[in-house]
Amino acid sequence: MDGPTMLPGSTVTDSPTSSRVVLAADLGGTQFRVAIVEESGRLLDRHAIPTMGHLGPSAVLDRMADACREMLARVPKRATVLGLGIAAPSPIDPKRGVVYQAPNIPGWVNIALRDEMADRLRIPVLVGNDANFAALGEWRFGAGRGHGDLIFLTFSTGVGSGFVTGGRLLVGHHGLAGEAGHTVIQVDGPLCGCGKRGCLEAFASGTAIRREALQRRVDFPQSTLHRYADLSAADVEAEAQRGDPLALELMRDAGRYAGIGIANLVHIFDPDVVVVGGGVSHSGPHWWETLQQSVREQVLEAYRPGLRIVPAMLGDDVGIFGSAAAMLDPTAAGA
Amino acid sequence: MDGPTMLPGSTVTDSPTSSRVVLAADLGGTQFRVAIVEESGRLLDRHAIPTMGHLGPSAVLDRMADACREMLARVPKRATVLGLGIAAPSPIDPKRGVVYQAPNIPGWVNIALRDEMADRLRIPVLVGNDANFAALGEWRFGAGRGHGDLIFLTFSTGVGSGFVTGGRLLVGHHGLAGEAGHTVIQVDGPLCGCGKRGCLEAFASGTAIRREALQRRVDFPQSTLHRYADLSAADVEAEAQRGDPLALELMRDAGRYAGIGIANLVHIFDPDVVVVGGGVSHSGPHWWETLQQSVREQVLEAYRPGLRIVPAMLGDDVGIFGSAAAMLDPTAAGA
Repeated sequence: MDGPTMLPGSTVTDSPTSSRVVLAADLGGTQFRVAIVEESGRLLDRHAIPTMGHLGPSAVLDRMADACREMLARVPKRATVLGLGIAAPSPIDPKRGVVYQAPNIPGWVNIALRDEMADRLRIPVLVGNDANFAALGEWRFGAGRGHGDLIFLTFSTGVGSGFVTGGRLLVGHHGLAGEAGHTVIQVDGPLCGCGKRGCLEAFASGTAIRREALQRRVDFPQSTLHRYADLSAADVEAEAQRGDPLALELMRDAGRYAGIGIANLVHIFDPDVVVVGGGVSHSGPHWWETLQQSVREQVLEAYRPGLRIVPAMLGDDVGIFGSAAAMLDPTAAGA
Repeated sequence: MDGPTMLPGSTVTDSPTSSRVVLAADLGGTQFRVAIVEESGRLLDRHAIPTMGHLGPSAVLDRMADACREMLARVPKRATVLGLGIAAPSPIDPKRGVVYQAPNIPGWVNIALRDEMADRLRIPVLVGNDANFAALGEWRFGAGRGHGDLIFLTFSTGVGSGFVTGGRLLVGHHGLAGEAGHTVIQVDGPLCGCGKRGCLEAFASGTAIRREALQRRVDFPQSTLHRYADLSAADVEAEAQRGDPLALELMRDAGRYAGIGIANLVHIFDPDVVVVGGGVSHSGPHWWETLQQSVREQVLEAYRPGLRIVPAMLGDDVGIFGSAAAMLDPTAAGA
C-alpha cells in the first residue's frame, strides 16, 4: 500500500482531508485495484490484489469485497464515503449494474456486479465499462479538465473509446455506446478480432501493428524486425525509435489510421478536446505527428478552431479516477 | 395557406386549442416556410414564401419576419406564443444563434439569425441546423417517439445526420456535431463533395448513386439507364423498380453502404432506434432490404436486442416539426 499520491496538476496543501470521499476500483483480468479518492481528485490510499478469476465469480466478488473493506477501514475519520465505483473490462449495463460478459475473467457472464457488491458492502455501488469510465476520469481529473465535449480513445491491444458530451457520459440503450474501435474505415478491409472486416481496431491497434509487421517484414530482409521471433507492437515501436525504415513506416501507418478514426469522430461529436491514451500512444513523434497530420488533413476546417488532441494524463490509474468521477456524479455517468 | 393538418399518428379531437404554441420555421434555398404548432404537435396553420436569396441577407430577413408576423396574427386568441424556432440549411452555432455559412443562400456568411429575428419580432428565437432539428423532430413527434437514444440519417443529394442521446440533441463545441456523412468508410475511396475521399456521402448519397450510374452504364449497353441524357438518382431508382439489373445493383450497393454507415453509428451510440429519411429512402425494397441486411451483418450481436431501423415519418415537414420541438424544449435542443 502506498502513501497519498497527488493527481497531476493538483496543488499540495496541508489542509485536513475534505469531508467526502469515494472508493474507486478498477477490475482487470489480473488485478483488482481499489483506492480512496477525495472529491478534489486527491488519491489518499490504494490497495491491489490478484483477481484470481479461476476461483469463479463468487469467490472473486468476495475477494473484491474484502479489499474494499480494507480500504473502508482506512478512510480518514472525518470523511463520509459516498460509495464505490467500479470500472470493469467488459460491456456493462450501467443502469442495471450488470456485466454482460468479461472476456478476461472466467465465468463472468451476466454478473449483477453492482448488486453483488452493494449486498456485501452495504454502500452505494456504481459500475461501468472501463473505457467509458476512463473518458469520464480524463474529463473530470485529467487531460480533459475544463472542456465540455470530450472524445477519449485508447490505442493498445485493441482500440477503446468513450465520449462525454455536454458534461455527460454517452452510455446508450444497452450501455454499449463508445465502441469506435469497431467502426469500419475500410469496407472489406482486413479481418478484425470481432469478426468484421476493416474496423478501426484492425488498422490502428497494437494487434494490427503486429500483424502488419509480421506480414511485411518478409519483403524487407534488412529490417531489424527480423531479430524478434515473437514480435510485439512494442518491439516495432522500439525498432522505429532506432530508425528501422520498415518499423517507422508501420508506426506511421498506424498513426495515420488512428487520425482517420479520430477525424470521423470529430465530424460526429464536434469536440473541443480529443484525449489519446493506451500503450501505442506512448510511441514517439513518428506516431504522434503522423496522427496529428492525419487529423488535420481529414477534419473539415470549421471543426478546427480550438480543437486540441492531447495525450491522456492519468496513465494506469485512469480506471480508478474514472470510477471516482462516476461515483462522485452518478448522473454524469449515466447510471 | 392550408387549414389545420394533423401530425401522423395523432388523434383528431374537437377540444379547443391548447394554450401554448410556437412558430416553427424551415429556411431553405428556395422557400421559407413557417407554421403554428401546438405543444401536442398539432400543426394549426402554415405559410410559405420564396426565399429570394438574391435580394441579400437583410431583405431575406425582413421577408422572413413579415411571414412570421402573418402567422402571429393568426395564432388562436387563447394561445401563448413561446417563440420561434428556425431550422437552417447550414452549419450553425446554436448557442450564439449564428449561421456560419448557408451554401444555398447568397451572402449568408456569419449571419446572427437568432438576434436579427428576435430584434424584428420581439419574441424568443432559437435556431439550429436542419438535420439536427430533424432528428429532434422525429424524436419528439415522429418515428422516434418513446425512444431514448435516436440516430437520424437523411439520404438525399448528400447524407445528413443528427443524434439524440438521453433526451438531448448532440450539438458539439461549435454546434457542428452530426456530420456522419463526412465520416470515412473507405480510406482513399472516391472523392466526396467536401474534398475528402471515401466519405459515407461519397457512397450512399443520391450524388454517389448518379456518379456510379454514369460510370458503370458504359459497360452495360443493354441497361435502360442509357435512356437518360441527364441521369439522376431518382431515374436510377425508377429503372430499378422496372427491373433493370444495373440499376438494381446500384441501388443495392447504395443500401449496403448506408447500412455500413448506420452500423458504425450504432457501435458509437448504441441507440434503440435509427430513423432513416431523405429522397433516397423512398426507394423500394431492393434498397431498404439491402440496408437492413447490411446493418444486421455489421452490428455486433449485443447491440441488436430492441434495435429498430424505421423510415422517417415527418416527410417535408420534418424541419418545421424539428423547429417546433426545439422551441418547445430549448435545453433538449442544446441552445
